[in-house]
Amino acid sequence: MNKKIKRSYIREILDATDENTISFAGGLPDKELFPLFELSKASKEVFKNSDCLQYSKSQGIESLREKIAQIYTDKFNFPTSKDEILITTGSQQAFDIILKSLDSNELIVERPTYIGALGAFKILNKQILGFNKIDELNTLLNENNILYTISDYQNPSTNIYSNKERKEFSKILNKKKSVLIEDGPYCFLNFKNKIKDPISKRYDNSFHLGSFSKIVAPGLRLGWIRANKNNINKLFVAKESLDLHTSSFNQMLMNEYLSSNNLFKHISKINKEYNKKMKFMAKCFKRDIPSFTFKKPKGGMFIYGSFKEDSMILAKKAIRENIAFVPGEVFYLNKKSNEARFNFTNASYKDIKIGINKLASIINSDK
Amino acid sequence: MNKKIKRSYIREILDATDENTISFAGGLPDKELFPLFELSKASKEVFKNSDCLQYSKSQGIESLREKIAQIYTDKFNFPTSKDEILITTGSQQAFDIILKSLDSNELIVERPTYIGALGAFKILNKQILGFNKIDELNTLLNENNILYTISDYQNPSTNIYSNKERKEFSKILNKKKSVLIEDGPYCFLNFKNKIKDPISKRYDNSFHLGSFSKIVAPGLRLGWIRANKNNINKLFVAKESLDLHTSSFNQMLMNEYLSSNNLFKHISKINKEYNKKMKFMAKCFKRDIPSFTFKKPKGGMFIYGSFKEDSMILAKKAIRENIAFVPGEVFYLNKKSNEARFNFTNASYKDIKIGINKLASIINSDK
Repeated sequence: MNKKIKRSYIREILDATDENTISFAGGLPDKELFPLFELSKASKEVFKNSDCLQYSKSQGIESLREKIAQIYTDKFNFPTSKDEILITTGSQQAFDIILKSLDSNELIVERPTYIGALGAFKILNKQILGFNKIDELNTLLNENNILYTISDYQNPSTNIYSNKERKEFSKILNKKKSVLIEDGPYCFLNFKNKIKDPISKRYDNSFHLGSFSKIVAPGLRLGWIRANKNNINKLFVAKESLDLHTSSFNQMLMNEYLSSNNLFKHISKINKEYNKKMKFMAKCFKRDIPSFTFKKPKGGMFIYGSFKEDSMILAKKAIRENIAFVPGEVFYLNKKSNEARFNFTNASYKDIKIGINKLASIINSDK
Repeated sequence: MNKKIKRSYIREILDATDENTISFAGGLPDKELFPLFELSKASKEVFKNSDCLQYSKSQGIESLREKIAQIYTDKFNFPTSKDEILITTGSQQAFDIILKSLDSNELIVERPTYIGALGAFKILNKQILGFNKIDELNTLLNENNILYTISDYQNPSTNIYSNKERKEFSKILNKKKSVLIEDGPYCFLNFKNKIKDPISKRYDNSFHLGSFSKIVAPGLRLGWIRANKNNINKLFVAKESLDLHTSSFNQMLMNEYLSSNNLFKHISKINKEYNKKMKFMAKCFKRDIPSFTFKKPKGGMFIYGSFKEDSMILAKKAIRENIAFVPGEVFYLNKKSNEARFNFTNASYKDIKIGINKLASIINSDK
């Protein structure tokens, strides 16, 4: 009766963790940085209007779509109108909406790639092919398939494409005519607040996915899709069949928060703190597990590197000692790997120190 | 590129309505009855804990699942534990989650039935067959298909199954072994606050869908699935691939609301007001359009009846005059019908009076 699809390893770990676990596994932001006071204040405004509790339109609330469109126009110099935005219940929902609305059955994804995207593609029985280098796309892409990419601080690899690489992507896409799904949850999370233009700016048949999860709060489940109006309109049937529309209250709350606060000032505060935390975790690795090799990321929420040991076996041992991280092979379609992903944003400094140190003991006890 | 699936007529109407439209089309509750003050108060408590803005578990927040389980145990004498509840982003999402988790490709549905369910089934390319009378299920059902039913104040027909009929359903199901999806958004909306046992109580391989949309507020997008633990566990992969989890904030808000308020006292207030409004609309019909035939419903949110005129043509004329209702044929897979559905909960008394009167003029101007 049940389809044979494995649960996401990360969600399983998240479900298995409790208050005793030091978790580097999920993609959880630092909850100390949530604008709790500001959102609480915004909610008082929102509750003045009973429309916040009523059904609303499938595409999303107009004023919020306008504000998101303005971010594209201002920050990427990528002119965008409210009609080119669809609000989603978290950016995760965008996968299901887009794939149900297109005829394409084949996806081309980075190796490794985001496990949540793989899950959403697999449950719709899509074919998935991986690529390592951009020029492979010259043979892999065609007008019947879809390229899925995370351009900034990729999850899990932490890779960011240079401007030159982005141009290469758009050149190939304009030639091959594939659909582009460009996932941008971390696009504003550069430690020095630098922002690169999305590939979508140079390729019209594209869907750029955005999310408030990493820059405001994931618990509200608010994301969006940016595409040309024609492509946005194709998504309504799938969106409404899924959940009619995204929570009116949450949309109005975010709209009010954005009206009364400077989002990018808040983001720069996050980036400053995340840079400090990343450096701290990197220092712990260098000191306690020097054999773990990695390149310091320039943004995002993860350190991704390679163990000398089998990282899957290590992850299983670690979870028994209440330390959680994600072994690299779950991010591949079908490949053994000793890579591993560590989230540095969620744990406290103290827990980062204790966690990496404990992991070192587990490794050393086997020698 | 785009799949050929028509948008839901109701959602299109909802998108087309503006402040000048008198709408009897959607399934919108009366927003005057939303517990705005109580939810606003609850939100102050919720904002004391930053977990409300963080990611949470796919199955839903434990304390909320416990409270929903308790409703089954107390109100239906249907013993239920928190592990038998999955929180969904509105009850609409349950269709996608369940269908993706089962191998069955065929659904058996009432004629007419809920258009949102038809939409969710069609986008997953499921086969749909209709039934008119319960005994047809003896030939239609088998262990590879799914029965979808709305037992209470069915949308759109307003029909409620008697206890005898419910027993008949469960008898056939226990013999034929189909999966049962029993949709219960209106199960507490009896005008005299009477509650009938769901069919699911007598058939184990079932999914009972519940929703806070009609009894608290739809804008929060909170629903649930009740099934045995084994069946609930089968749903996690699909749920997390869709939106990871339902909004933590909204779940904690509802949990706090339920802790501090008497839900069923609130529901009885709704039922009293809806009964009054239904009677008022019925009176307007009798006076202004006596040729429109219908049976007064015993609960729910709709009056469903038959015009002498072509109801599709009438609906299109009416929308041009800013009056919206839903012609019956959109609730059928493939059948001409002069039936029509009128929501009586959303419009004000004044608008009900004006709207039905204007509709009468439109009909009479054609004679």
